[in-house]
Amino acid sequence: MQRSLDTGLGEVKAQLIQMAGYLEEAVKYSTLAWKNRSREMIDKVNQIESKVNQAHMDIDAACFKLLATQQPLASDLRFLLSVVKINTDLERMADQAVNIANNTEFYLKHTPYPDLADLIKMSEIVRELVKVAIDSFINSDSALAKKVVDEDDQVDQLKDKVFQNALESIKMKTTDAEQGLNVILIARNLERIGDHATNIAEDVIFSISGKDVRHSHSREKGGLNEK
Amino acid sequence: MQRSLDTGLGEVKAQLIQMAGYLEEAVKYSTLAWKNRSREMIDKVNQIESKVNQAHMDIDAACFKLLATQQPLASDLRFLLSVVKINTDLERMADQAVNIANNTEFYLKHTPYPDLADLIKMSEIVRELVKVAIDSFINSDSALAKKVVDEDDQVDQLKDKVFQNALESIKMKTTDAEQGLNVILIARNLERIGDHATNIAEDVIFSISGKDVRHSHSREKGGLNEK
Repeated sequence: MQRSLDTGLGEVKAQLIQMAGYLEEAVKYSTLAWKNRSREMIDKVNQIESKVNQAHMDIDAACFKLLATQQPLASDLRFLLSVVKINTDLERMADQAVNIANNTEFYLKHTPYPDLADLIKMSEIVRELVKVAIDSFINSDSALAKKVVDEDDQVDQLKDKVFQNALESIKMKTTDAEQGLNVILIARNLERIGDHATNIAEDVIFSISGKDVRHSHSREKGGLNEK
Repeated sequence: MQRSLDTGLGEVKAQLIQMAGYLEEAVKYSTLAWKNRSREMIDKVNQIESKVNQAHMDIDAACFKLLATQQPLASDLRFLLSVVKINTDLERMADQAVNIANNTEFYLKHTPYPDLADLIKMSEIVRELVKVAIDSFINSDSALAKKVVDEDDQVDQLKDKVFQNALESIKMKTTDAEQGLNVILIARNLERIGDHATNIAEDVIFSISGKDVRHSHSREKGGLNEK
Protein backbone atom coordinates (compact mmCIF):
# COMPACT_ATOMS: atom_id res chain seq x y z
CA MET A 1 0.00 0.00 0.00
CA GLN A 2 2.72 2.50 0.96
CA ARG A 3 4.65 1.67 -2.21
CA SER A 4 1.60 2.38 -4.34
CA LEU A 5 1.02 5.61 -2.37
CA ASP A 6 4.65 6.64 -2.90
CA THR A 7 4.31 6.03 -6.63
CA GLY A 8 1.12 8.09 -6.70
CA LEU A 9 2.69 10.96 -4.75
CA GLY A 10 5.69 10.90 -7.09
CA GLU A 11 3.40 11.08 -10.11
CA VAL A 12 1.42 13.99 -8.68
CA LYS A 13 4.65 15.81 -7.89
CA ALA A 14 5.87 15.30 -11.47
CA GLN A 15 2.57 16.64 -12.81
CA LEU A 16 2.80 19.73 -10.62
CA ILE A 17 6.40 20.37 -11.68
CA GLN A 18 5.33 20.18 -15.31
CA MET A 19 2.50 22.64 -14.66
CA ALA A 20 4.90 24.97 -12.84
CA GLY A 21 7.09 24.84 -15.95
CA TYR A 22 4.17 25.96 -18.14
CA LEU A 23 3.49 28.76 -15.68
CA GLU A 24 7.07 29.99 -15.69
CA GLU A 25 6.93 30.10 -19.49
CA ALA A 26 3.64 31.99 -19.43
CA VAL A 27 5.08 34.60 -17.06
CA LYS A 28 8.23 34.90 -19.17
CA TYR A 29 6.35 35.36 -22.45
CA SER A 30 3.86 37.79 -20.90
CA THR A 31 6.79 39.94 -19.78
CA LEU A 32 8.52 39.77 -23.16
CA ALA A 33 5.24 40.82 -24.80
CA TRP A 34 5.29 44.38 -23.41
CA LYS A 35 9.05 44.62 -23.01
CA ASN A 36 9.79 43.70 -26.64
CA ARG A 37 6.45 44.91 -28.05
CA SER A 38 5.79 41.42 -29.39
CA ARG A 39 2.39 40.12 -30.49
CA GLU A 40 3.94 36.71 -31.00
CA MET A 41 4.56 36.50 -27.24
CA ILE A 42 0.92 37.38 -26.54
CA ASP A 43 -0.14 34.42 -28.69
CA LYS A 44 2.29 32.13 -26.87
CA VAL A 45 0.79 33.03 -23.49
CA ASN A 46 -2.69 32.24 -24.75
CA GLN A 47 -1.50 28.89 -26.12
CA ILE A 48 0.03 27.94 -22.78
CA GLU A 49 -3.15 28.81 -20.90
CA SER A 50 -5.09 25.85 -22.23
CA LYS A 51 -2.30 23.48 -21.16
CA VAL A 52 -2.38 25.03 -17.69
CA ASN A 53 -6.15 24.65 -17.45
CA GLN A 54 -5.96 20.98 -18.43
CA ALA A 55 -3.13 20.32 -15.96
CA HIS A 56 -5.11 22.14 -13.24
CA MET A 57 -8.03 19.72 -13.59
CA ASP A 58 -5.82 16.64 -14.05
CA ILE A 59 -3.81 17.36 -10.91
CA ASP A 60 -6.92 17.94 -8.81
CA ALA A 61 -8.39 14.66 -10.09
CA ALA A 62 -5.15 12.80 -9.32
CA CYS A 63 -5.06 14.20 -5.77
CA PHE A 64 -8.69 13.27 -5.23
CA LYS A 65 -8.03 9.73 -6.42
CA LEU A 66 -5.03 9.33 -4.10
CA LEU A 67 -6.97 10.67 -1.12
CA ALA A 68 -9.86 8.33 -1.88
CA THR A 69 -7.88 5.17 -2.57
CA GLN A 70 -4.71 5.45 -0.45
CA GLN A 71 -5.79 7.32 2.70
CA PRO A 72 -2.47 9.10 3.16
CA LEU A 73 -1.52 10.24 6.66
CA ALA A 74 0.70 12.84 8.34
CA SER A 75 3.33 14.26 5.99
CA ASP A 76 1.87 12.48 2.94
CA LEU A 77 -1.52 14.05 3.64
CA ARG A 78 0.04 17.47 4.20
CA PHE A 79 1.93 17.09 0.93
CA LEU A 80 -1.24 16.23 -1.00
CA LEU A 81 -3.25 19.09 0.50
CA SER A 82 -0.39 21.44 -0.36
CA VAL A 83 -0.42 20.18 -3.93
CA VAL A 84 -4.16 20.90 -4.15
CA LYS A 85 -3.54 24.48 -3.01
CA ILE A 86 -0.37 25.09 -5.02
CA ASN A 87 -2.21 23.81 -8.09
CA THR A 88 -4.87 26.49 -7.58
CA ASP A 89 -2.23 29.19 -7.14
CA LEU A 90 -0.38 28.14 -10.29
CA GLU A 91 -3.58 28.28 -12.30
CA ARG A 92 -4.39 31.76 -10.98
CA MET A 93 -0.86 32.92 -11.73
CA ALA A 94 -1.41 31.78 -15.31
CA ASP A 95 -4.62 33.83 -15.34
CA GLN A 96 -2.53 36.84 -14.34
CA ALA A 97 -0.04 36.12 -17.15
CA VAL A 98 -3.00 36.06 -19.55
CA ASN A 99 -4.18 39.36 -18.07
CA ILE A 100 -0.74 40.84 -18.70
CA ALA A 101 -0.86 39.56 -22.29
CA ASN A 102 -4.29 41.10 -22.76
CA ASN A 103 -3.28 44.37 -21.13
CA THR A 104 -0.33 44.36 -23.50
CA GLU A 105 -2.78 44.24 -26.44
CA PHE A 106 -4.05 47.61 -25.22
CA TYR A 107 -0.56 48.80 -24.35
CA LEU A 108 0.67 48.24 -27.92
CA LYS A 109 -2.06 50.47 -29.33
CA HIS A 110 -0.60 53.55 -27.61
CA THR A 111 2.65 55.47 -27.73
CA PRO A 112 5.31 53.57 -25.75
CA TYR A 113 5.31 54.49 -22.06
CA PRO A 114 8.17 56.90 -21.29
CA ASP A 115 10.02 54.85 -18.65
CA LEU A 116 9.62 51.12 -18.13
CA ALA A 117 12.71 50.67 -15.91
CA ASP A 118 10.78 50.02 -12.65
CA LEU A 119 8.27 47.73 -14.33
CA ILE A 120 11.13 45.73 -15.86
CA LYS A 121 12.86 45.50 -12.49
CA MET A 122 9.59 44.43 -10.89
CA SER A 123 9.06 41.71 -13.51
CA GLU A 124 12.57 40.37 -12.90
CA ILE A 125 12.06 40.13 -9.14
CA VAL A 126 8.66 38.48 -9.58
CA ARG A 127 10.06 35.90 -12.00
CA GLU A 128 12.84 35.15 -9.53
CA LEU A 129 10.32 34.76 -6.67
CA VAL A 130 8.26 32.38 -8.79
CA LYS A 131 11.36 30.35 -9.60
CA VAL A 132 12.46 30.16 -5.96
CA ALA A 133 8.93 29.22 -4.80
CA ILE A 134 8.80 26.39 -7.32
CA ASP A 135 12.33 25.25 -6.40
CA SER A 136 11.32 25.21 -2.73
CA PHE A 137 8.50 22.83 -3.66
CA ILE A 138 10.65 20.62 -5.90
CA ASN A 139 13.41 20.29 -3.27
CA SER A 140 11.16 20.41 -0.17
CA ASP A 141 13.36 23.26 1.01
CA SER A 142 11.78 25.43 3.69
CA ALA A 143 14.74 27.85 3.76
CA LEU A 144 14.06 28.68 0.11
CA ALA A 145 10.35 28.98 0.84
CA LYS A 146 11.05 31.39 3.70
CA LYS A 147 13.14 33.51 1.32
CA VAL A 148 10.07 34.00 -0.88
CA VAL A 149 7.88 34.99 2.07
CA ASP A 150 10.52 37.48 3.24
CA GLU A 151 11.22 39.06 -0.13
CA ASP A 152 7.71 39.66 -1.42
CA ASP A 153 7.70 43.16 0.12
CA GLN A 154 10.22 44.32 -2.49
CA VAL A 155 7.60 43.69 -5.14
CA ASP A 156 5.02 45.77 -3.28
CA GLN A 157 7.44 48.66 -2.96
CA LEU A 158 8.28 48.62 -6.66
CA LYS A 159 4.60 48.44 -7.53
CA ASP A 160 4.00 51.58 -5.47
CA LYS A 161 6.75 53.32 -7.41
CA VAL A 162 5.25 52.28 -10.75
CA PHE A 163 1.81 53.48 -9.60
CA GLN A 164 3.14 56.87 -8.43
CA ASN A 165 5.16 57.44 -11.58
CA ALA A 166 2.24 56.47 -13.81
CA LEU A 167 0.00 58.95 -11.97
CA GLU A 168 2.67 61.62 -12.31
CA SER A 169 3.06 60.88 -16.04
CA ILE A 170 -0.69 61.15 -16.57
CA LYS A 171 -0.78 64.49 -14.76
CA MET A 172 2.29 65.83 -16.60
CA LYS A 173 0.85 64.49 -19.85
CA THR A 174 4.03 62.58 -20.67
CA THR A 175 1.68 59.63 -21.21
CA ASP A 176 -2.03 59.44 -21.96
CA ALA A 177 -4.42 58.27 -19.24
CA GLU A 178 -5.14 54.90 -20.91
CA GLN A 179 -1.46 54.08 -21.24
CA GLY A 180 -0.78 55.07 -17.64
CA LEU A 181 -3.59 52.75 -16.60
CA ASN A 182 -2.24 49.92 -18.78
CA VAL A 183 1.09 50.16 -16.99
CA ILE A 184 -0.64 50.27 -13.58
CA LEU A 185 -2.67 47.17 -14.44
CA ILE A 186 0.40 45.24 -15.62
CA ALA A 187 2.16 46.17 -12.37
CA ARG A 188 -0.89 45.00 -10.43
CA ASN A 189 -0.89 41.67 -12.34
CA LEU A 190 2.80 41.17 -11.59
CA GLU A 191 2.22 41.93 -7.93
CA ARG A 192 -0.51 39.32 -7.78
CA ILE A 193 1.82 36.74 -9.33
CA GLY A 194 4.25 37.57 -6.52
CA ASP A 195 1.45 37.12 -3.95
CA HIS A 196 0.68 33.68 -5.34
CA ALA A 197 4.38 32.79 -5.15
CA THR A 198 4.18 33.68 -1.45
CA ASN A 199 1.10 31.49 -1.04
CA ILE A 200 3.00 28.59 -2.63
CA ALA A 201 5.95 29.15 -0.32
CA GLU A 202 3.62 29.13 2.72
CA ASP A 203 2.10 25.86 1.54
CA VAL A 204 5.57 24.34 1.09
CA ILE A 205 6.42 25.30 4.68
CA PHE A 206 3.18 23.68 5.89
CA SER A 207 3.85 20.56 3.84
CA ILE A 208 7.34 20.16 5.31
CA SER A 209 6.81 21.23 8.90
CA GLY A 210 3.05 21.14 9.56
CA LYS A 211 3.30 24.81 10.57
CA ASP A 212 0.66 27.23 9.33
CA VAL A 213 2.62 30.48 8.80
CA ARG A 214 0.03 32.21 6.63
CA HIS A 215 -1.10 34.93 8.97
CA SER A 216 2.02 35.26 11.09
CA HIS A 217 3.90 37.76 8.92
CA SER A 218 2.50 41.13 7.91
CA ARG A 219 1.95 41.81 4.27
CA GLU A 220 1.81 45.40 3.19
CA LYS A 221 -1.61 46.21 1.98
CA GLY A 222 -4.27 48.54 0.69
CA GLY A 223 -4.48 51.74 -1.24
CA LEU A 224 -1.47 52.07 -3.42
CA ASN A 225 -0.24 49.06 -1.54
CA GLU A 226 -2.82 46.34 -1.97
CA LYS A 227 -2.67 42.74 -0.92
CA MET B 1 -17.04 5.72 12.42
CA GLN B 2 -19.53 7.22 9.94
CA ARG B 3 -21.40 8.89 12.80
CA SER B 4 -18.25 10.54 14.04
CA LEU B 5 -17.41 11.60 10.45
CA ASP B 6 -20.89 13.08 10.02
CA THR B 7 -20.47 15.05 13.25
CA GLY B 8 -17.10 16.32 12.05
CA LEU B 9 -18.44 17.33 8.64
CA GLY B 10 -21.33 19.12 10.29
CA GLU B 11 -18.93 21.04 12.54
CA VAL B 12 -16.72 22.04 9.63
CA LYS B 13 -19.77 23.19 7.70
CA ALA B 14 -20.90 25.31 10.66
CA GLN B 15 -17.43 26.86 10.91
CA LEU B 16 -17.42 27.73 7.22
CA ILE B 17 -20.89 29.27 7.44
CA GLN B 18 -19.70 31.42 10.33
CA MET B 19 -16.65 32.51 8.34
CA ALA B 20 -18.88 33.30 5.34
CA GLY B 21 -20.95 35.49 7.65
CA TYR B 22 -17.83 37.45 8.67
CA LEU B 23 -16.97 37.84 5.01
CA GLU B 24 -20.40 39.13 4.07
CA GLU B 25 -20.11 41.71 6.86
CA ALA B 26 -16.63 42.74 5.67
CA VAL B 27 -17.89 43.26 2.12
CA LYS B 28 -20.91 45.21 3.38
CA TYR B 29 -18.86 47.51 5.60
CA SER B 30 -16.19 48.03 2.93
CA THR B 31 -18.93 49.18 0.56
CA LEU B 32 -20.55 51.49 3.12
CA ALA B 33 -17.11 53.00 3.78
CA TRP B 34 -16.83 54.74 0.39
CA LYS B 35 -20.56 55.06 -0.23
CA ASN B 36 -21.26 56.84 3.07
CA ARG B 37 -17.77 58.32 3.46
CA SER B 38 -17.41 56.55 6.80
CA ARG B 39 -14.12 55.97 8.63
CA GLU B 40 -16.00 53.92 11.21
CA MET B 41 -16.78 51.35 8.51
CA ILE B 42 -13.10 51.17 7.54
CA ASP B 43 -12.27 50.26 11.14
CA LYS B 44 -15.00 47.62 11.22
CA VAL B 45 -13.54 45.90 8.14
CA ASN B 46 -10.12 45.78 9.74
CA GLN B 47 -11.58 44.33 12.93
CA ILE B 48 -13.34 41.57 11.00
CA GLU B 49 -10.16 40.65 9.13
CA SER B 50 -8.48 39.12 12.18
CA LYS B 51 -11.55 36.94 12.83
CA VAL B 52 -11.44 35.80 9.22
CA ASN B 53 -7.74 34.96 9.43
CA GLN B 54 -8.27 32.89 12.58
CA ALA B 55 -11.25 31.07 11.05
CA HIS B 56 -9.19 30.42 7.89
CA MET B 57 -6.54 28.56 9.88
CA ASP B 58 -9.04 26.79 12.18
CA ILE B 59 -11.09 25.46 9.27
CA ASP B 60 -8.02 24.17 7.43
CA ALA B 61 -6.84 22.44 10.61
CA ALA B 62 -10.29 20.88 11.15
CA CYS B 63 -10.38 19.60 7.56
CA PHE B 64 -6.88 18.16 7.91
CA LYS B 65 -7.85 16.37 11.11
CA LEU B 66 -10.97 14.86 9.54
CA LEU B 67 -9.03 13.70 6.49
CA ALA B 68 -6.36 12.16 8.71
CA THR B 69 -8.62 10.46 11.24
CA GLN B 70 -11.82 9.61 9.35
CA GLN B 71 -10.67 8.81 5.82
CA PRO B 72 -13.82 10.17 4.15
CA LEU B 73 -14.79 8.78 0.74
CA ALA B 74 -16.77 9.82 -2.32
CA SER B 75 -19.16 12.70 -1.62
CA ASP B 76 -17.76 13.27 1.90
CA LEU B 77 -14.27 13.62 0.47
CA ARG B 78 -15.50 15.96 -2.27
CA PHE B 79 -17.27 18.02 0.36
CA LEU B 80 -14.14 18.33 2.49
CA LEU B 81 -11.91 19.27 -0.44
CA SER B 82 -14.47 21.86 -1.47
CA VAL B 83 -14.44 23.29 2.04
CA VAL B 84 -10.64 23.60 1.87
CA LYS B 85 -10.94 25.55 -1.38
CA ILE B 86 -13.93 27.67 -0.39
CA ASN B 87 -12.12 28.55 2.83
CA THR B 88 -9.21 29.93 0.78
CA ASP B 89 -11.57 31.91 -1.44
CA LEU B 90 -13.40 33.42 1.54
CA GLU B 91 -10.11 34.51 3.07
CA ARG B 92 -9.01 36.15 -0.18
CA MET B 93 -12.38 37.86 -0.53
CA ALA B 94 -11.80 39.33 2.92
CA ASP B 95 -8.39 40.55 1.70
CA GLN B 96 -10.20 42.34 -1.10
CA ALA B 97 -12.64 43.91 1.38
CA VAL B 98 -9.60 45.14 3.33
CA ASN B 99 -8.15 46.50 0.09
CA ILE B 100 -11.41 48.38 -0.55
CA ALA B 101 -11.28 49.79 2.98
CA ASN B 102 -7.68 50.90 2.45
CA ASN B 103 -8.41 52.35 -0.98
CA THR B 104 -11.27 54.21 0.70
CA GLU B 105 -8.73 55.81 3.06
CA PHE B 106 -7.17 57.37 -0.03
CA TYR B 107 -10.54 58.04 -1.61
CA LEU B 108 -11.68 60.11 1.38
CA LYS B 109 -8.69 62.43 1.05
CA HIS B 110 -9.88 63.72 -2.31
CA THR B 111 -12.93 65.56 -3.61
CA PRO B 112 -15.83 63.10 -3.93
CA TYR B 113 -15.89 61.35 -7.31
CA PRO B 114 -18.51 62.92 -9.58
CA ASP B 115 -20.67 59.86 -10.28
CA LEU B 116 -20.65 56.70 -8.19
CA ALA B 117 -23.86 55.22 -9.68
CA ASP B 118 -22.14 52.38 -11.62
CA LEU B 119 -19.82 51.53 -8.75
CA ILE B 120 -22.80 51.35 -6.38
CA LYS B 121 -24.69 49.13 -8.83
CA MET B 122 -21.60 46.94 -9.18
CA SER B 123 -21.25 46.59 -5.40
CA GLU B 124 -24.91 45.57 -5.11
CA ILE B 125 -24.57 42.85 -7.75
CA VAL B 126 -21.34 41.56 -6.20
CA ARG B 127 -22.90 41.39 -2.73
CA GLU B 128 -25.86 39.49 -4.19
CA LEU B 129 -23.48 37.05 -5.97
CA VAL B 130 -21.60 36.47 -2.73
CA LYS B 131 -24.87 35.81 -0.90
CA VAL B 132 -26.11 33.38 -3.55
CA ALA B 133 -22.76 31.55 -3.65
CA ILE B 134 -22.82 31.11 0.12
CA ASP B 135 -26.48 30.01 0.04
CA SER B 136 -25.62 27.44 -2.64
CA PHE B 137 -23.04 26.01 -0.25
CA ILE B 138 -25.34 26.06 2.79
CA ASN B 139 -28.19 24.38 0.94
CA SER B 140 -26.06 22.18 -1.37
CA ASP B 141 -28.00 23.74 -4.24
CA SER B 142 -26.31 23.42 -7.62
CA ALA B 143 -28.99 25.47 -9.39
CA LEU B 144 -28.10 28.44 -7.16
CA ALA B 145 -24.40 27.79 -7.76
CA LYS B 146 -24.97 27.76 -11.53
CA LYS B 147 -26.74 31.12 -11.24
CA VAL B 148 -23.54 32.63 -9.79
CA VAL B 149 -21.38 31.18 -12.57
CA ASP B 150 -23.79 32.53 -15.21
CA GLU B 151 -24.19 36.01 -13.75
CA ASP B 152 -20.60 36.95 -13.06
CA ASP B 153 -20.29 38.53 -16.54
CA GLN B 154 -22.58 41.37 -15.43
CA VAL B 155 -19.92 42.38 -12.93
CA ASP B 156 -17.22 42.43 -15.60
CA GLN B 157 -19.35 44.61 -17.84
CA LEU B 158 -20.04 47.12 -15.08
CA LYS B 159 -16.37 47.19 -14.17
CA ASP B 160 -15.52 48.10 -17.76
CA LYS B 161 -18.01 50.94 -17.57
CA VAL B 162 -16.50 52.22 -14.31
CA PHE B 163 -12.98 52.01 -15.83
CA GLN B 164 -14.02 53.87 -19.01
CA ASN B 165 -15.84 56.60 -17.11
CA ALA B 166 -12.94 57.06 -14.70
CA LEU B 167 -10.52 57.45 -17.62
CA GLU B 168 -12.90 59.92 -19.24
CA SER B 169 -13.23 61.88 -15.98
CA ILE B 170 -9.44 62.05 -15.60
CA LYS B 171 -9.08 63.32 -19.17
CA MET B 172 -11.92 65.85 -18.81
CA LYS B 173 -10.50 66.87 -15.43
CA THR B 174 -13.83 66.31 -13.68
CA THR B 175 -11.78 64.24 -11.22
CA ASP B 176 -8.09 64.20 -10.38
CA ALA B 177 -5.93 61.29 -11.55
CA GLU B 178 -5.53 59.82 -8.03
CA GLN B 179 -9.25 59.80 -7.39
CA GLY B 180 -9.93 58.23 -10.78
CA LEU B 181 -7.41 55.53 -9.89
CA ASN B 182 -8.98 55.00 -6.45
CA VAL B 183 -12.34 54.33 -8.08
CA ILE B 184 -10.73 52.01 -10.64
CA LEU B 185 -9.00 50.05 -7.85
CA ILE B 186 -12.20 49.71 -5.82
CA ALA B 187 -13.99 48.44 -8.94
CA ARG B 188 -11.16 45.98 -9.49
CA ASN B 189 -11.42 44.77 -5.86
CA LEU B 190 -15.17 44.27 -6.23
CA GLU B 191 -14.65 42.36 -9.47
CA ARG B 192 -12.21 40.04 -7.73
CA ILE B 193 -14.74 39.38 -4.95
CA GLY B 194 -17.17 38.41 -7.72
CA ASP B 195 -14.54 36.09 -9.22
CA HIS B 196 -14.06 34.36 -5.87
CA ALA B 197 -17.84 33.96 -5.56
CA THR B 198 -17.70 32.16 -8.93
CA ASN B 199 -14.88 29.94 -7.65
CA ILE B 200 -17.01 29.03 -4.62
CA ALA B 201 -19.99 28.21 -6.84
CA GLU B 202 -17.79 25.97 -9.01
CA ASP B 203 -16.58 24.14 -5.91
CA VAL B 204 -20.15 23.67 -4.70
CA ILE B 205 -21.04 22.10 -8.06
CA PHE B 206 -18.04 19.77 -7.77
CA SER B 207 -18.95 18.87 -4.20
CA ILE B 208 -22.52 17.95 -5.16
CA SER B 209 -22.03 16.32 -8.55
CA GLY B 210 -18.34 15.44 -8.83
CA LYS B 211 -18.22 17.52 -12.03
CA ASP B 212 -15.31 19.87 -12.59
CA VAL B 213 -16.89 22.82 -14.43
CA ARG B 214 -14.06 25.26 -13.85
CA HIS B 215 -12.75 25.62 -17.36
CA SER B 216 -15.90 24.79 -19.29
CA HIS B 217 -17.39 28.29 -19.40
CA SER B 218 -15.60 31.30 -20.81
CA ARG B 219 -14.83 34.16 -18.52
CA GLU B 220 -14.27 37.54 -20.06
CA LYS B 221 -10.76 38.62 -19.52
CA GLY B 222 -7.84 40.91 -20.01
CA GLY B 223 -7.22 44.53 -20.69
CA LEU B 224 -10.12 46.53 -19.40
CA ASN B 225 -11.72 43.16 -18.86
CA GLU B 226 -9.42 41.16 -16.65
CA LYS B 227 -10.00 37.79 -15.09
